[in-house]
Amino acid sequence: MSFIVDKKNVNLLVQSIVDGNDTYIKEQLFETHPVDIGEALSRMEIDDAEYILKVLEPQVAADVLVELDPDLRDKLVSSYTSKEIAEMVIENIDSDDAADVLAELPPIKKEEVISLLGNAEQASDLVDLLNYEFDTAGGLMAKELIKVNEEWTIAKALREMRRQAENVDEVFTIYVVNNKGQLLGTLSLKKLLFSDALRSSISDLYKKTDVHFVYSSQSAEDVMDIMKKYDLVVLPVVDENHTLLGRITIDDALDVMKDEAEKDYQMASGISGQLGEADSVWTVTKARVPWLLIGLFGGICVSQVIGNYEEQLQVNPTLAFFIPLIAATGGNVGVQSSAIVVQGLANKSIDIGSIFPRMVKELKVAFINAIICSTLILAYNFIFNPSDHSLAYTVSLSLVAVILMAALFGSSIPLILNKFKIDPALATGPFITTTNDILGLVLYFVIARVMYGL
Amino acid sequence: MSFIVDKKNVNLLVQSIVDGNDTYIKEQLFETHPVDIGEALSRMEIDDAEYILKVLEPQVAADVLVELDPDLRDKLVSSYTSKEIAEMVIENIDSDDAADVLAELPPIKKEEVISLLGNAEQASDLVDLLNYEFDTAGGLMAKELIKVNEEWTIAKALREMRRQAENVDEVFTIYVVNNKGQLLGTLSLKKLLFSDALRSSISDLYKKTDVHFVYSSQSAEDVMDIMKKYDLVVLPVVDENHTLLGRITIDDALDVMKDEAEKDYQMASGISGQLGEADSVWTVTKARVPWLLIGLFGGICVSQVIGNYEEQLQVNPTLAFFIPLIAATGGNVGVQSSAIVVQGLANKSIDIGSIFPRMVKELKVAFINAIICSTLILAYNFIFNPSDHSLAYTVSLSLVAVILMAALFGSSIPLILNKFKIDPALATGPFITTTNDILGLVLYFVIARVMYGL
Repeated sequence: MSFIVDKKNVNLLVQSIVDGNDTYIKEQLFETHPVDIGEALSRMEIDDAEYILKVLEPQVAADVLVELDPDLRDKLVSSYTSKEIAEMVIENIDSDDAADVLAELPPIKKEEVISLLGNAEQASDLVDLLNYEFDTAGGLMAKELIKVNEEWTIAKALREMRRQAENVDEVFTIYVVNNKGQLLGTLSLKKLLFSDALRSSISDLYKKTDVHFVYSSQSAEDVMDIMKKYDLVVLPVVDENHTLLGRITIDDALDVMKDEAEKDYQMASGISGQLGEADSVWTVTKARVPWLLIGLFGGICVSQVIGNYEEQLQVNPTLAFFIPLIAATGGNVGVQSSAIVVQGLANKSIDIGSIFPRMVKELKVAFINAIICSTLILAYNFIFNPSDHSLAYTVSLSLVAVILMAALFGSSIPLILNKFKIDPALATGPFITTTNDILGLVLYFVIARVMYGL
Repeated sequence: MSFIVDKKNVNLLVQSIVDGNDTYIKEQLFETHPVDIGEALSRMEIDDAEYILKVLEPQVAADVLVELDPDLRDKLVSSYTSKEIAEMVIENIDSDDAADVLAELPPIKKEEVISLLGNAEQASDLVDLLNYEFDTAGGLMAKELIKVNEEWTIAKALREMRRQAENVDEVFTIYVVNNKGQLLGTLSLKKLLFSDALRSSISDLYKKTDVHFVYSSQSAEDVMDIMKKYDLVVLPVVDENHTLLGRITIDDALDVMKDEAEKDYQMASGISGQLGEADSVWTVTKARVPWLLIGLFGGICVSQVIGNYEEQLQVNPTLAFFIPLIAATGGNVGVQSSAIVVQGLANKSIDIGSIFPRMVKELKVAFINAIICSTLILAYNFIFNPSDHSLAYTVSLSLVAVILMAALFGSSIPLILNKFKIDPALATGPFITTTNDILGLVLYFVIARVMYGL
């Protein structure tokens, strides 16, 4: 049976560290998936996690390190000597993960580790990978792949692949290159496995058209879009000469996708940057307080706006009752409209040419919503504030105006930001609600002035 | 060269329909990826799309249909006769996609299509798949897979697999079963491809431990969690007897993941259900108006709350100036706190045991934020409203109270909803802002009453 990660089992592991019972640890974690071992380690003190890693087989320990949250991983790796990192970690993991581990080391230690690597090719691959920006295709790719020359026979290809396959965990696709190393196409394992003619050459079997690839300088977002669109599990990376450099697997693209979605979600909720469970109180505060300050600044502007109508409020204090209703409705409509646009832009489902029809549609929806909401509130005011029809008309008319305005603003601001290459998600959350608060209340008091004939 | 989907090329295609120039269409779309053909079709009138599908090879047309947005696909499929659906669509696509197409047909047509299928095994597979709920592992799986018996020799397995592989587009993993069809483990293509001993039996080669699978009744969310956690590209599905039923590939799990993230995002923005570009004005309105009505109802409650302090407002109308600031800050803090919890629950990164420390941390963050915001607003009021210190204290004290309360509510409500198996994302958006509006203003006026000694 595999190890189940729960409180009891984690405590038993920790107890066995105290007792020096390494056999228990080895037995419990034998053949447990590195992801699960990682989960167990992340639930214990750092010293205990360190101890367990050293008890495990180096290959397993390395696999566990790769699966850990980067913060915890970096802490654990920093307890290793350069020699240990080189021999026990880097040698045992894929080049993309190795580059991630190296990138977090202090410069001197990084160079030391690279110089200690036994395999010169691996060392140069890593140096190469470290040159790419982390959010590009080059930064995501791994060097391990299986490639064959188009001129080889199937038999020779099989021999060569057997050699190459030692470094590759999972073989999804075989890449076909020419003598210059340029990517020509792909060969499916299925075709190779079921091909009868061992003498025939690779060039008769491989797929030449419709081969998807990315340039190493393309963004991680491009990688994700291509893989998602064409349902790919692996994508080859080439340089500007079309030379095959490496490959990106779907799990790495998935991480990018998850990060993007979380970033948008947090932005819409007024949190900048990406927060995780492990972040300190201070980090969390820094990510949140700027948005609260935007709101605060907006609130001060609103107080100035209302201040201009002090006399009106003294005569009709009932006007103040509906300030939150006007502000909240404007905010809610604005967030709805901007969220749809931000999501459409993230999905690439919005065609930039279709902005005008989109606005028209948004305004139609807003108009229906405005009629429904203002009619209901009109009825409410007629029933519960029968003495003051001016108030009833002011609130309902303002609501219509505010809803239309918020819809227009909410949907156009993300599009404008996008046009200027600013992340449209910035437009959601506190930013849009604050703008709508201010504009909404100006409308409200202007309409009130007209209605009360002031 | 592959066809590039842009306005000009789509117009040229449409023009060639008018001209009856089928050769042009065939030439242009030859070897174009079905995803790209689908994108071109979704940009033209439905009649034109229908025409092009009929010009394409049936296999290609079927692949294109699978890639289309379900709404458009269903419209196009409805123009086919039952015989055409059976022979030209269903026969050419994977069983999971076929079940999706069938599920949308009217009951009579559905039965007709199934009865017209040439292959009895395929028909029974489809009937079987149609029995599963769409959001379960059974509803996501496809029947096409490659399985071998543990007792077979490698040579026999290769022969059998060659036969099975005809129905499978991409071979990721080979499943090993016993005579009862129960899943025992997996065999990697890599191992098989590079194994020398054709006489040795499957049972010597396959991986028996750490084989991930799901039961057909498990939720789509479970599928997604397992595939994401263990970086799997394919996951086998078994019944309660552990009999191998089918497999789910990562692209289908990805769709579920995307839908979940979009649903949470839209919920946080006050939009229920999932909206796409193609939805009608009325559908969009229906998804949005309930949230606006919650906000409206909240606004009415707030107006009642403020109504209780009418006299106080008449004496100190300046109190009204800061109503939006108090309400907006409460709303912003509440959304921040709830978003972090909702996201943590969606990621499974929140350990249910850790609720108490999480609350403490949330309150610490809130306390720092409260001190920063209230100090700034105190300074502002001292400078710009120097005559009314009671107002300055009221606003700042209320701000501290509101921020603490909103943080507590924002983080606890999603946890409580989750405990009662209600989607915690419901707690975000208008719901949390409205609650905080009301409670915040009650606090504000109570504090004002004390400060002004009323």
